[in-house]
Amino acid sequence: MSRERVAVAVGDLNGIGIELALRNHRDIKRYIEPIYSIDSTMLRRASYLLNIDIPKDFNIVEKIAEPFKIEAGRITKESGAYSFASFIRAVEMAKAGDVDKIVTLPIHKQAWELAGVEYKGHTDALRDIFQKDAIMMLGVPSMFVALYSEHIPLRYVVNEVKNVKKLSNFLIDLYRNIDLRDGEKIALLALNPHAGDGGVLGNEERFIIEAREIAHRTIRKNIFTFPIVPDVAFTPKIRGRYRYFVALYHDQGLAPLKALHFESAINVSLNLPIKRVSVGHGTAFDIAYRGVELNSQSYINAVKY
Amino acid sequence: MSRERVAVAVGDLNGIGIELALRNHRDIKRYIEPIYSIDSTMLRRASYLLNIDIPKDFNIVEKIAEPFKIEAGRITKESGAYSFASFIRAVEMAKAGDVDKIVTLPIHKQAWELAGVEYKGHTDALRDIFQKDAIMMLGVPSMFVALYSEHIPLRYVVNEVKNVKKLSNFLIDLYRNIDLRDGEKIALLALNPHAGDGGVLGNEERFIIEAREIAHRTIRKNIFTFPIVPDVAFTPKIRGRYRYFVALYHDQGLAPLKALHFESAINVSLNLPIKRVSVGHGTAFDIAYRGVELNSQSYINAVKY
Repeated sequence: MSRERVAVAVGDLNGIGIELALRNHRDIKRYIEPIYSIDSTMLRRASYLLNIDIPKDFNIVEKIAEPFKIEAGRITKESGAYSFASFIRAVEMAKAGDVDKIVTLPIHKQAWELAGVEYKGHTDALRDIFQKDAIMMLGVPSMFVALYSEHIPLRYVVNEVKNVKKLSNFLIDLYRNIDLRDGEKIALLALNPHAGDGGVLGNEERFIIEAREIAHRTIRKNIFTFPIVPDVAFTPKIRGRYRYFVALYHDQGLAPLKALHFESAINVSLNLPIKRVSVGHGTAFDIAYRGVELNSQSYINAVKY
Repeated sequence: MSRERVAVAVGDLNGIGIELALRNHRDIKRYIEPIYSIDSTMLRRASYLLNIDIPKDFNIVEKIAEPFKIEAGRITKESGAYSFASFIRAVEMAKAGDVDKIVTLPIHKQAWELAGVEYKGHTDALRDIFQKDAIMMLGVPSMFVALYSEHIPLRYVVNEVKNVKKLSNFLIDLYRNIDLRDGEKIALLALNPHAGDGGVLGNEERFIIEAREIAHRTIRKNIFTFPIVPDVAFTPKIRGRYRYFVALYHDQGLAPLKALHFESAINVSLNLPIKRVSVGHGTAFDIAYRGVELNSQSYINAVKY
């Protein structure tokens, strides 16, 4: 079997990413042919600190960025610069056709900020690099949540939802980027409590309904549900009916998802020329380089996806 | 053992409330001495339609409101008027000292509206009747979520959070109305994704922090956490640390709660002269009077509470 070549961006080296990569290397080789976006200097330093031998077939790349001192659990400019460079190298490999897909391990946003990186995260960066409206979708095989708005203050969410053109484009793009089964529907969430309760608790649901209708006309299919009451959408009965959910804002989708599937969720970027998938968790600075048993479910799920 | 006398408001008679009451009567008698806020005419009609005999010790009250034709699963003015009257009678019994507490079965808000009732729900009505800032708290014994704002459009939430005086009063009232164990803390949620990420994703967390400090000064104890990232608050590790959570808006708390505990959650009104507890679910019009096996967990939990 020829496995797909996948670039693995190692994330913030002060976090748990490189440990996940080293510990799970043999396992993930069953699914993919990984090329790790790290250079030999930094790999040796991490391997030494972790006291984990570097596997023989651990393919890496040429120098990525200035080597630096790994400081477990610390937010540093150097580590931010390195994790950004590792990510960019992985993207370049995908653009050049050297790999088919990329998997990203967790970065630390504040470290990126310290390093002068203007992006709030991988998805944001990919959006700019490819000038495409990347869609951020998190989940597990039985339940994926696509986020219409993501890393914005809550106070901006309502205006985003009122942007019917943007919302309908999002719905159309999402539909085109996932494989639905015959007759399968996508659960579309409402914005207000009780979906506005007929207008008593907010009336922005009409914008969602309008966007949904435009999307349906464009794709010539009835795919999205009528806006579902947000606190009911993820109850056992309703979530059993759908694999894909559209959340209008970050916490609307991710709080229930992480309550149910924190350890195993992955993060997928859709609607891009390259395929990128990431672990759902963060850098876990509190347990990095501590010899603590790490939960690899999300990483393994990301690789499988 | 002398059991507490509890008035049970039967909720919307077109829904599942009365069936829950009849089916679980013997069970709940183990915990409380129920007096059902329903009159004999309507009780006989419900019993006939459900084909459930009225237990001999099923204590009821004098005429509540105009009798009407029960129409399973329909939103009607008559049913709304009756469920409101049943609730008010229960409250009066509590005010008069005839009962110690009240348990409410689900009403339908639109039926109340049709009946000209101006309240959006039980909590709202109690707030007006007692002119007190009732606190709405939902949950199960291991995890209760108190809602700072509830039945308001999402677009108003941010302004509510900026009201530091109101928020600090809420925190103080909540603290005074629950029994904390020694050293136990209450999880206080942030408003913005990633708790604002140091201001990059919103800066309203500073109002929350200010309200928290005022509350701590007043109660002379450090009880509330620093604002927790909302989509992390209900992950297994964090929710294992707390029994009580403060959500700033309806779906922030209830979507994760219902994802985890939909069937068994109850709804408690705190900060009132009377104690009121309710089932966490709704009228379930789709399965009312259908002979479907009902899940009584929430009702039983409410009675136990």
